[in-house]
Amino acid sequence: SPYCPNPGDSIVVEDFRRKLKYFFMNPCEKYRARGRKPWKLMLQILKIAIITFQLVSFGLSNQMMVTFKDENLMVFKHLFLKEYQDQRVDRYAVYTKTDVYDHIYYIIRRFINLQNLTVGNHGYETMQGGYIPLILCQEFYRNSNISPGNDTFNIDPHVDKECISIYPLEPLDDNSLSKDVNLSLDFKRLLSVNIYLTLKAINLQTVRHHVFPDCYDFTITIEFDNRACSGRIKINLENDVGINECKDWNVAGTFMKNNQLLLIDSMVIIACFMSLILCIRSVCSGTQLQLHYTAFFHTYYGKTVSWSERWEFVNGWYILIIVSDTLTIAGSALKIGIQTKDLTNYDVCSILLGASTILVWVGVIRYLGFFQKYNILILTLRAAFPNVIRFSCCAGLIYLGYCFCGWIVLGPYHEKFRTLDKVTECLFSLIIGDDSYSTFKKMREKNYMVWLFSRLYLYSFISLFSYMLLSLFIAFITDTYETIKVSFALQLKVWLKNSHSQLNSVFIFFMM
Amino acid sequence: SPYCPNPGDSIVVEDFRRKLKYFFMNPCEKYRARGRKPWKLMLQILKIAIITFQLVSFGLSNQMMVTFKDENLMVFKHLFLKEYQDQRVDRYAVYTKTDVYDHIYYIIRRFINLQNLTVGNHGYETMQGGYIPLILCQEFYRNSNISPGNDTFNIDPHVDKECISIYPLEPLDDNSLSKDVNLSLDFKRLLSVNIYLTLKAINLQTVRHHVFPDCYDFTITIEFDNRACSGRIKINLENDVGINECKDWNVAGTFMKNNQLLLIDSMVIIACFMSLILCIRSVCSGTQLQLHYTAFFHTYYGKTVSWSERWEFVNGWYILIIVSDTLTIAGSALKIGIQTKDLTNYDVCSILLGASTILVWVGVIRYLGFFQKYNILILTLRAAFPNVIRFSCCAGLIYLGYCFCGWIVLGPYHEKFRTLDKVTECLFSLIIGDDSYSTFKKMREKNYMVWLFSRLYLYSFISLFSYMLLSLFIAFITDTYETIKVSFALQLKVWLKNSHSQLNSVFIFFMM
Amino acid sequence: SPYCPNPGDSIVVEDFRRKLKYFFMNPCEKYRARGRKPWKLMLQILKIAIITFQLVSFGLSNQMMVTFKDENLMVFKHLFLKEYQDQRVDRYAVYTKTDVYDHIYYIIRRFINLQNLTVGNHGYETMQGGYIPLILCQEFYRNSNISPGNDTFNIDPHVDKECISIYPLEPLDDNSLSKDVNLSLDFKRLLSVNIYLTLKAINLQTVRHHVFPDCYDFTITIEFDNRACSGRIKINLENDVGINECKDWNVAGTFMKNNQLLLIDSMVIIACFMSLILCIRSVCSGTQLQLHYTAFFHTYYGKTVSWSERWEFVNGWYILIIVSDTLTIAGSALKIGIQTKDLTNYDVCSILLGASTILVWVGVIRYLGFFQKYNILILTLRAAFPNVIRFSCCAGLIYLGYCFCGWIVLGPYHEKFRTLDKVTECLFSLIIGDDSYSTFKKMREKNYMVWLFSRLYLYSFISLFSYMLLSLFIAFITDTYETIKVSFALQLKVWLKNSHSQLNSVFIFFMM
Amino acid sequence: SPYCPNPGDSIVVEDFRRKLKYFFMNPCEKYRARGRKPWKLMLQILKIAIITFQLVSFGLSNQMMVTFKDENLMVFKHLFLKEYQDQRVDRYAVYTKTDVYDHIYYIIRRFINLQNLTVGNHGYETMQGGYIPLILCQEFYRNSNISPGNDTFNIDPHVDKECISIYPLEPLDDNSLSKDVNLSLDFKRLLSVNIYLTLKAINLQTVRHHVFPDCYDFTITIEFDNRACSGRIKINLENDVGINECKDWNVAGTFMKNNQLLLIDSMVIIACFMSLILCIRSVCSGTQLQLHYTAFFHTYYGKTVSWSERWEFVNGWYILIIVSDTLTIAGSALKIGIQTKDLTNYDVCSILLGASTILVWVGVIRYLGFFQKYNILILTLRAAFPNVIRFSCCAGLIYLGYCFCGWIVLGPYHEKFRTLDKVTECLFSLIIGDDSYSTFKKMREKNYMVWLFSRLYLYSFISLFSYMLLSLFIAFITDTYETIKVSFALQLKVWLKNSHSQLNSVFIFFMM
Repeated sequence: SPYCPNPGDSIVVEDFRRKLKYFFMNPCEKYRARGRKPWKLMLQILKIAIITFQLVSFGLSNQMMVTFKDENLMVFKHLFLKEYQDQRVDRYAVYTKTDVYDHIYYIIRRFINLQNLTVGNHGYETMQGGYIPLILCQEFYRNSNISPGNDTFNIDPHVDKECISIYPLEPLDDNSLSKDVNLSLDFKRLLSVNIYLTLKAINLQTVRHHVFPDCYDFTITIEFDNRACSGRIKINLENDVGINECKDWNVAGTFMKNNQLLLIDSMVIIACFMSLILCIRSVCSGTQLQLHYTAFFHTYYGKTVSWSERWEFVNGWYILIIVSDTLTIAGSALKIGIQTKDLTNYDVCSILLGASTILVWVGVIRYLGFFQKYNILILTLRAAFPNVIRFSCCAGLIYLGYCFCGWIVLGPYHEKFRTLDKVTECLFSLIIGDDSYSTFKKMREKNYMVWLFSRLYLYSFISLFSYMLLSLFIAFITDTYETIKVSFALQLKVWLKNSHSQLNSVFIFFMM
Repeated sequence: SPYCPNPGDSIVVEDFRRKLKYFFMNPCEKYRARGRKPWKLMLQILKIAIITFQLVSFGLSNQMMVTFKDENLMVFKHLFLKEYQDQRVDRYAVYTKTDVYDHIYYIIRRFINLQNLTVGNHGYETMQGGYIPLILCQEFYRNSNISPGNDTFNIDPHVDKECISIYPLEPLDDNSLSKDVNLSLDFKRLLSVNIYLTLKAINLQTVRHHVFPDCYDFTITIEFDNRACSGRIKINLENDVGINECKDWNVAGTFMKNNQLLLIDSMVIIACFMSLILCIRSVCSGTQLQLHYTAFFHTYYGKTVSWSERWEFVNGWYILIIVSDTLTIAGSALKIGIQTKDLTNYDVCSILLGASTILVWVGVIRYLGFFQKYNILILTLRAAFPNVIRFSCCAGLIYLGYCFCGWIVLGPYHEKFRTLDKVTECLFSLIIGDDSYSTFKKMREKNYMVWLFSRLYLYSFISLFSYMLLSLFIAFITDTYETIKVSFALQLKVWLKNSHSQLNSVFIFFMM
Repeated sequence: SPYCPNPGDSIVVEDFRRKLKYFFMNPCEKYRARGRKPWKLMLQILKIAIITFQLVSFGLSNQMMVTFKDENLMVFKHLFLKEYQDQRVDRYAVYTKTDVYDHIYYIIRRFINLQNLTVGNHGYETMQGGYIPLILCQEFYRNSNISPGNDTFNIDPHVDKECISIYPLEPLDDNSLSKDVNLSLDFKRLLSVNIYLTLKAINLQTVRHHVFPDCYDFTITIEFDNRACSGRIKINLENDVGINECKDWNVAGTFMKNNQLLLIDSMVIIACFMSLILCIRSVCSGTQLQLHYTAFFHTYYGKTVSWSERWEFVNGWYILIIVSDTLTIAGSALKIGIQTKDLTNYDVCSILLGASTILVWVGVIRYLGFFQKYNILILTLRAAFPNVIRFSCCAGLIYLGYCFCGWIVLGPYHEKFRTLDKVTECLFSLIIGDDSYSTFKKMREKNYMVWLFSRLYLYSFISLFSYMLLSLFIAFITDTYETIKVSFALQLKVWLKNSHSQLNSVFIFFMM
Repeated sequence: SPYCPNPGDSIVVEDFRRKLKYFFMNPCEKYRARGRKPWKLMLQILKIAIITFQLVSFGLSNQMMVTFKDENLMVFKHLFLKEYQDQRVDRYAVYTKTDVYDHIYYIIRRFINLQNLTVGNHGYETMQGGYIPLILCQEFYRNSNISPGNDTFNIDPHVDKECISIYPLEPLDDNSLSKDVNLSLDFKRLLSVNIYLTLKAINLQTVRHHVFPDCYDFTITIEFDNRACSGRIKINLENDVGINECKDWNVAGTFMKNNQLLLIDSMVIIACFMSLILCIRSVCSGTQLQLHYTAFFHTYYGKTVSWSERWEFVNGWYILIIVSDTLTIAGSALKIGIQTKDLTNYDVCSILLGASTILVWVGVIRYLGFFQKYNILILTLRAAFPNVIRFSCCAGLIYLGYCFCGWIVLGPYHEKFRTLDKVTECLFSLIIGDDSYSTFKKMREKNYMVWLFSRLYLYSFISLFSYMLLSLFIAFITDTYETIKVSFALQLKVWLKNSHSQLNSVFIFFMM
């Protein structure tokens, strides 16, 4: 047989075998075999420590900022929106013409008297000496002549925009307001009324934690949205925030500098960069060894090596670390940018750092895999993976069918089935046993045929997915676990007894 | 043995065997064997693509229409119902005589002043030049003399109806309203007061998406429901909608025509029709082969073929495709009808299309089954099916017992057990672990004996169904999966080694 | 061996064996063996049909009555309670002295003007010509002198009661009310103020369903509860209902008589009685056979029969039917009493009928067990039962520990842990995966140590019960199912091959 | 082989073996072997009984106290907070300057008129003849000059405090209040306004249960919290309670004395102390035997005993009992302290007693383990434990990664991900299938990229944890159960057949 290594058991083969063996050792074994210190392992542990510290400090500073922003949003809603109440569902809207005018005048009046009202330290934004005014803009179709009574309309879809500026501190009393602010809305053509305010505030709260206070610019947009033309004008208040260092300040006591945070970020970048280079080197040497191995086999045994065997030389864990390091470096660089020069793409930064964190922690599992008993777990998960994916494909097809069907049929009668992504979420929740009763209950409505269909639909879906699929899943995993356990015991036994026996795969032979 | 095919291994038998083998091949094998292009497979894939496109476009247009209708319903509630508030639970009702009159007069006054109030483009419906009036109808027992104090009553269950018309734009001031609208209700005989309004509106929203706007007719019914005679008059506002093309319009810019949608529907119908014919042909040829097979066996081996073997000739997947195609054709035909000539049974159409979608996507699993590893999954599900059904029967009986018991005993004390279908839903939710705490909590009430019973009832039900049944289910599926896996491995091995050995079933012999 | 039946295989033994065999046959086998018609089986099926019919008609009539009662309760709350609003959580209470007086005077005024207010057909109850008055009673400690400022009190726990009557239709205007109704409350001594009203109404709703309307007596109790002496007086309105036939009535059209319902009840009683007698007879004959069997074994083999074998002669299903029949008969008798002579213990009746329904439907499973494949299911459940019970004991102990601990430690900080039965419900819900987030969230509070403890408590509890126990459960059932399947296959094989082989248990030998 | 005990089967060995055997017997076996009465077992049962009694009485008295405290808190909120409403979410806050003054004056006015308002028996606290006044304190930065409009500020973070006292019963009418109470707040510097009240009340409720009423001191703190400086001043009312015996009282009738409760506590302490001593003695004798065993093995077989074998001599159950007893004694001692001398660390006491209760009930499982069939359960749990821990480590790492990632990325957009401990709770709830739909729904917001990330994040997390982990868990337990069952059957068989065969472990040999 051409596989048989016995006849050519020369020094070359033995040497190559030892090389291979060393390559596939884990750090502890390498240390025991040649006394090589596990630098890479130590670097990884250090990396995890400083990344975690960076993340926690970032999260905490973030949390304070978000809280301040949120509280201010709430304050603006209570200050500027007439009869606003905190509610779980946001249904703040107006339905009549007079209400629209009332709400607009209320906002203007509140803005003008802001300094006498607010309990917080809000101030008007200034520019070139004067205050920045409140700007009220209305959007409407250029020309439209609509008479629904006759089913006729004449519309020019081009949108025009008109704006008025109102300066604070103008002496406006309640009666004269509607006269002075010359506002007239043509509701049939109206698309939206937007009111823009800019206010400033200082987050003094941080003073107590000995952190330097920041100055905030709030750009408030109150939108009266009539785009649906349904007779209901929704009112939204949104609040964009810009954070600046304050210009001129004077504080008694000691305060933490921002520089310390930048130091940590730099350390993270350096550690990740070193880890990245070490891992790329390992991957490269693995690839070289693989080429060597392929050539070796071709010459000595006249056999080509299959792709699946070739892939074994690329350590998946290194790939994971490379991806994670790249993400962390990008994220940390962005973070430095945000903390110094007012880069504002905070979301990209947080996604990069967040995704890398998951990978970093998943990577720790590798080191647990060096222990025998943990390894079974990891191997089970890895072996079950292809079956799980296959299975998810089948389940996914049925799921897709149910999604489309639910959207089309139940959409008009059930709020949870209104849009496709809501349907997917709702059905996913039903699988893991959540919110099923309320899903049933909210359907209870007019059309009997649809009601009956919804019952069939929901009962069949839940039974199928919650029971059948879970059971199949458990059957897979249980089976895989047992297979792995048996094969593991077998493999170990073989290894212990005769390390020279002929095995099916040459590769496994070398690895032992 | 009469089964043994060896002695008569003539050309006829071999020929028939080849025919059978070819029949049971999947498209890929057929292509490899005789080079037949898999037209049917390609047609199916094409069909899925255009059906999905049709469904998504239908769903999206639908979604916009439903949103407009819903928002208008909300607007009408806020405009016509006095002190109406958006709430999660709809408890809008009146309890005193003056309140009833107040609410009715409020509706009339609002209707008359509608044009000065509404922010949307609502107009009165016109007919023959004049406006269509608001119609107020009261229903009452023809004759009734009820004195609950004496336990005596005298009633004629025949229901009379009286109506008043009120035209918009009549100059009615608040004081004179109750004088002019001569309304007097005899609450003891009263069954209901219904107010009918008709309004028109144009969905201008679509203009922005370059889709042609539609004209909507809203038929609003406000019902004061006193049928329960309990002293509580529930007020419902319902809103039926009719969608027309607008008569006279003038819009600047380019707009999509409806014709494009009709084109897609026609394509769907054609594709499904072709697929239907192909599948029916396959089923027919299968049936013919089965008859041939039966005759063949009768003559050659002197044995009748069992029904279960006969059924193997009818490919279940073709049946699935035939049903799905039929539903799609019916649904698409209806859809064309709705989009052109104002057929209004939208619900039937959506149910037909929805049900067919599930079947279409389930059908895709067939093509996955051509791969070996997916097949195990599908076979497991198929093999577990009879046991699952049997098991569900047993469980269903106990479930039924619990449903009846819960309805009778807990019905008066627990809102979730008020009607039989609520009970089934509630218990079903409990099985998959939903809403159990609130089910427990809402019971906490007066009667101690019933409270104790409810505890016993709920604890036993949840333990039984949530634990015992799930466990048994998993036991079945795990067992079936293992059986299938073993038998599959066995069957494959047998096939690889000796393809001429005598197997138990002649049918399996032929299939290999 | 003394067990060996071979030597004495005389006619007596064979005869007895045949007798035993016949006894353990199921109805189908009996029919096949001796042609005995399965009367008992047919009676059971008939019984199920009429019991279900009885239950559904009972439930439906019930449902209507409960709805009417509930709606009236809601009406009374809206009529008599000042500023009452429908809310999910009932927090209707007063906190100041003037509020208490206001609420009381409001109730009185509303009662006096009831006829002008209510929309329903409510009337005052009359007695001996005159109206029954509203009665206002206050309960207070006979003598109390409390000065919390000095930590001193002097109290006589004997409770005194004082009542005032207020007749309707007395001409009381708002100003004079407080003068005329001479009401003075000493809040420091006050325990409660109860206001009793009696009103009558007729449920005319049923007229439309051609069912005879009933006359209702509502005894309304409004309680101002100051028993807690905490400064918060809770106000409850309760509504007891008495249902009478109306005295004097006159209705046009045909109506269903109550007698038809009584007919069904009687049929149910007769059917159950017959089934009861047949089952008792079977149990008796089983017992006799057992005695015979014991004696037989003693004489022929010199062995005593163990108790577990003796119990096999008592068919558990008959016991189930006997219990179910007894409950049904008692329930139906009560129901007749309720429908004719105004017995009012409705709850006992419904519990009896409800419990019997569960048993009846569980009994149907017996007939499914006559089919081979269903039998495996039933046997699995039966075999797993002792292990499940054992397991539940262990789990129950830990559960109990957690209940006590949660009650003591978290009780003061968490509403769900306030009382022991709430704790059990809450923990039970957590096991099946419900309401865990809200349980976590509601804890977020003052004391850090308790907060930490609650985290440990909840995480450990959920992990332990939701994961460990479910897994162990599944392990049991899976194991039992496999054992049963194997032993079943074995038993069948044995039975088919050699029916004369020596088995371990003589009893099994006889059964085959 | 040096293990073989056969050659030296002298009297010494046999003697020592018997000693060991006796040591590892359970109480029943010991009774059967040498007739030793199971005193320890009986003591444990007695202990459980009195501990349970102690706990229930403690819990019930506690429950009453907590209810009274809670109701009073509610009363104070309704009395002192303007326009306060019972709500699920506490959003009581003010946003304008005038509102702050209004709320403060309202509280003062209410306090002064308390005696005319409250329905409960609340009195002012007195000290040295006079009443204790309401104290109003404001905290503010010593010096601050903030102008957010210019981005400049000048702040001295030192906090100053100013207080005013207002005595009750001063004749203050509404108009003069703001003049007399000289209150001026500088909102820009303001940190908080605290109002302190002290009130007294007597819990008369207990009189009806024939328990002696206690006197309560309520220290109410109303805090206007402006620390966030965001323009929103949150208002909290907190209520600390001190419970005293009333000084001077006079009640008619018989009442339970507190002494009875002290008696029970003392009994608990004595029982636990005895149990503690007995268990410590057993542990000591076990350790001695272990030393003896080690020495014995060293001399006779020349082998050292491994640590795992040595640990077998320390009975884990005794350790459990020792810990539980220590906790109970400490808890009961504290409880006596609380009931007599007004120690107030109630929480420590309840945690000690609560934790000990769980342990006591878990300890009962030991006695169930004396029965064969229960033992399998316990052994399965014990054997599965290390694997479960290992598995939880792996899962925990991924979980940690998800927690950090969710906090950083979703924190600003989702309320459930705001703080790290909220994230862990939310994700934990998702695993057991709770609240998933609402978690999905609350995310629906502005930033599309984050929205997409959240979908990926949630779907992957739920699939991974809810399916993969549960399945692996079940695979472990099922496997362990089967292993244990087989090994148990084997071990028993071996024990029954040949008790002298050579086994692997010497220890097992001795145990049999």
